[in-house]
Amino acid sequence: MKVTKLSGFPEYLPAERIVEQHFLDVIRETFELHGFTSLETRAVEPVERLLGKGGDADKEIYGVTRLADEGGQASSRDVALGLHFDLTVPFARFVLENAGRLTFPYRRYQIQKVWRGERPQEGRYREFTQADIDVVDVGELSAHFEAEMPLVVAEVFAKLPIGRMTIQVNNRKIPEGFYKGIGIEDVAGTLRIVDKLDKVGPDKVAAQLREAGRTDEQAAQCLALAAIRTEDLSFVDRVRALGVEHPTLDEGLDALAAVIRTGLENAPGAMVADLKIARGLDYYTGTVYETQLEGHESWGSFCSGGRYDALASDGRTTYPGVGISIGVSRLLGLLLSQGLVTASRATPAAVLVAVVEEDSRRASDAVARALRARGIPCEVAPTAAKFGKQIRYADRRGIPFVWFPGDGTGPGPGDQVKDIRSGDQVDADPQTWSPPAEDLRPSVGAPAPSP
Amino acid sequence: MKVTKLSGFPEYLPAERIVEQHFLDVIRETFELHGFTSLETRAVEPVERLLGKGGDADKEIYGVTRLADEGGQASSRDVALGLHFDLTVPFARFVLENAGRLTFPYRRYQIQKVWRGERPQEGRYREFTQADIDVVDVGELSAHFEAEMPLVVAEVFAKLPIGRMTIQVNNRKIPEGFYKGIGIEDVAGTLRIVDKLDKVGPDKVAAQLREAGRTDEQAAQCLALAAIRTEDLSFVDRVRALGVEHPTLDEGLDALAAVIRTGLENAPGAMVADLKIARGLDYYTGTVYETQLEGHESWGSFCSGGRYDALASDGRTTYPGVGISIGVSRLLGLLLSQGLVTASRATPAAVLVAVVEEDSRRASDAVARALRARGIPCEVAPTAAKFGKQIRYADRRGIPFVWFPGDGTGPGPGDQVKDIRSGDQVDADPQTWSPPAEDLRPSVGAPAPSP
Repeated sequence: MKVTKLSGFPEYLPAERIVEQHFLDVIRETFELHGFTSLETRAVEPVERLLGKGGDADKEIYGVTRLADEGGQASSRDVALGLHFDLTVPFARFVLENAGRLTFPYRRYQIQKVWRGERPQEGRYREFTQADIDVVDVGELSAHFEAEMPLVVAEVFAKLPIGRMTIQVNNRKIPEGFYKGIGIEDVAGTLRIVDKLDKVGPDKVAAQLREAGRTDEQAAQCLALAAIRTEDLSFVDRVRALGVEHPTLDEGLDALAAVIRTGLENAPGAMVADLKIARGLDYYTGTVYETQLEGHESWGSFCSGGRYDALASDGRTTYPGVGISIGVSRLLGLLLSQGLVTASRATPAAVLVAVVEEDSRRASDAVARALRARGIPCEVAPTAAKFGKQIRYADRRGIPFVWFPGDGTGPGPGDQVKDIRSGDQVDADPQTWSPPAEDLRPSVGAPAPSP
Repeated sequence: MKVTKLSGFPEYLPAERIVEQHFLDVIRETFELHGFTSLETRAVEPVERLLGKGGDADKEIYGVTRLADEGGQASSRDVALGLHFDLTVPFARFVLENAGRLTFPYRRYQIQKVWRGERPQEGRYREFTQADIDVVDVGELSAHFEAEMPLVVAEVFAKLPIGRMTIQVNNRKIPEGFYKGIGIEDVAGTLRIVDKLDKVGPDKVAAQLREAGRTDEQAAQCLALAAIRTEDLSFVDRVRALGVEHPTLDEGLDALAAVIRTGLENAPGAMVADLKIARGLDYYTGTVYETQLEGHESWGSFCSGGRYDALASDGRTTYPGVGISIGVSRLLGLLLSQGLVTASRATPAAVLVAVVEEDSRRASDAVARALRARGIPCEVAPTAAKFGKQIRYADRRGIPFVWFPGDGTGPGPGDQVKDIRSGDQVDADPQTWSPPAEDLRPSVGAPAPSP
């Protein structure tokens, strides 16, 4: 049978997967340090719920049907199912389904695959991993959570072997209040045009705003607001200097100032107030987040989210929330394809235990058992080939150490271990020897410069 | 919109998910200690490949189609896709697709969801997690890998908070050679009947064997072989005592003795030679594995696998392999539903940092930052409620410690931490205080007996 490559469904070779695991481990560890609890939801949701968000989402949804049921044999009690295309829809459904068994505010993280039937292209996949955190509460959600979300992801990015990631923060109430303050009623339509600023530039945005009925002065003011970007609290004065007054604008400025102030205190340099950030304004109602990787701004945002007044509602109770989502596969795909990150080896094993002859394999097994009991990942050579061949086996995988059992009767006198990078070979006891800490697990980072 | 429970798609609440994470962490850590590299394959495979294994699998496969493409609008270049129903089919495809970029013998582990459109029942799900290890080589696979697989899972089970798990091992060549030695030609048909032994008992198996054309004597010999079960190597003599001779039987006995001997040396008590174990004998060709949880034998096998001469083949090259698969969701589902395992708390947080008043939240944030920098998971109280209410917030989640910031100006003199289980409250400095090691992360184990 022909082997079929499927475009848009990335799979990693062992060394790449070690990079991915490192990223996922750092993300999980950081989320847990901040007291988020893990959630994993089923891969499928009723299609009706997936479509509920509206928009063009239906074109991207993968429907799921038992092959045996195709052609109308499905039981009429079955609901049509589809693969989730994000982690927010299943999270909202989970909250409604389990509200009575959860404690609120509910802090959850969720690291899972999602599926979108998009046209595949660089950095855009049909199956990809997202890592989300959200805090959701019943009825009301305290504003301080809006400042907490970007701190958590700033800590993630600081721990990852990537360049400087800047979190761009805005508050939806700022453009809303500002636009109303200069007499623009169609806030959503205006935002949709201003949102194209990075793509088409200020001249085209101004032209489109005028086409949409805005005056020259209004268009100029919209662009002036969108141009404000400050790392400190000076954005407030710069907005004030534009001379626009509106209570919603005041609210937005206060809220954004609180987020930026918390950022300055806890993670200086990680956040920037960027007043052109818009995002899917149909459901975000407060703070919104995007990110840029310094030097790779054209790659777009790897992490985004915001505050929504109604994450979920069952008619009686409304659950407001705030969340942020890291596009793990997009980030990794671009870093790996550009050779910007690499793993020191293609296996967890730090040691290859050589086999002197097939009849003494049990002696090598005993060495491996002793090393593993002390947490040292190792593997026993697959064959009792010449030592040169066993060393090449280790070298091809990047295993740094090869262990030579002594007299073949088990761990004991005569055992030696060789660092195959330096060639250093020393006497060693499997009950006490340890590799240097940096060799215990594969390390992940920027590739070493070529010699 | 109505919230829809989907039968067969289990989802865990926070404390249950912590149990699942612990199981998955132990499994991954043990696999990596043995030098297995991680693989994650895409969720979908061409339906043609999924059906390739034959049998009734088609009835269980979930097909995947873009909603937009339903009704025949899919491009003719698209292949029909389905969700994988195990991890072996995608692994075999991945090996063929990447043979030139992998190093052999290729040791991989894979922990992922799989999907089967079965009728849901206790311990049987439509979406569930499996944890597989396999070793695959080119052309030939050394026999010692057949002894290694059960050692790895024995180590997993020894580290998990479950009762004694026994790995039942057989070698397919034993019944094959034995049957041929007593004149039975239809080996597969005979095995299929003997395989029902645990379900229907020896009398019915004997009757069915006779119906299928076996003599009384042959039926009795088949049952005598199937009844042999020993923890040591004595199974060899017991088989010999049945007086049957065949070269394939000799091969099988030698191979099984080698596996059991390695087990006795490395993991005494973990394995048993059990000559009734058959498994899907259409593709297993050597050692086969099943498991039983002591005291819960009726739950069936939680972990099984075996040796196959042709895991994959592209016509020119054949890849033999040996593998074993842990049914994580089945095991967890039964343990959780019976209350046999529990987590000490429902959140990773070891500490709740109280908030004295909303205006001093930044002081609490600073304490949390200091604790997290030293790897202590914590969360800051959501509101500056009365301390009693903040303590109840921690108690409901099982967070063992509540931190009271001192003068509200940040970490420093006056800070105290309370163990809310004992009521002990002591002065503490967030730069130096640590919880007891056993409280740092949630612990997972058998529930404490009620007082």
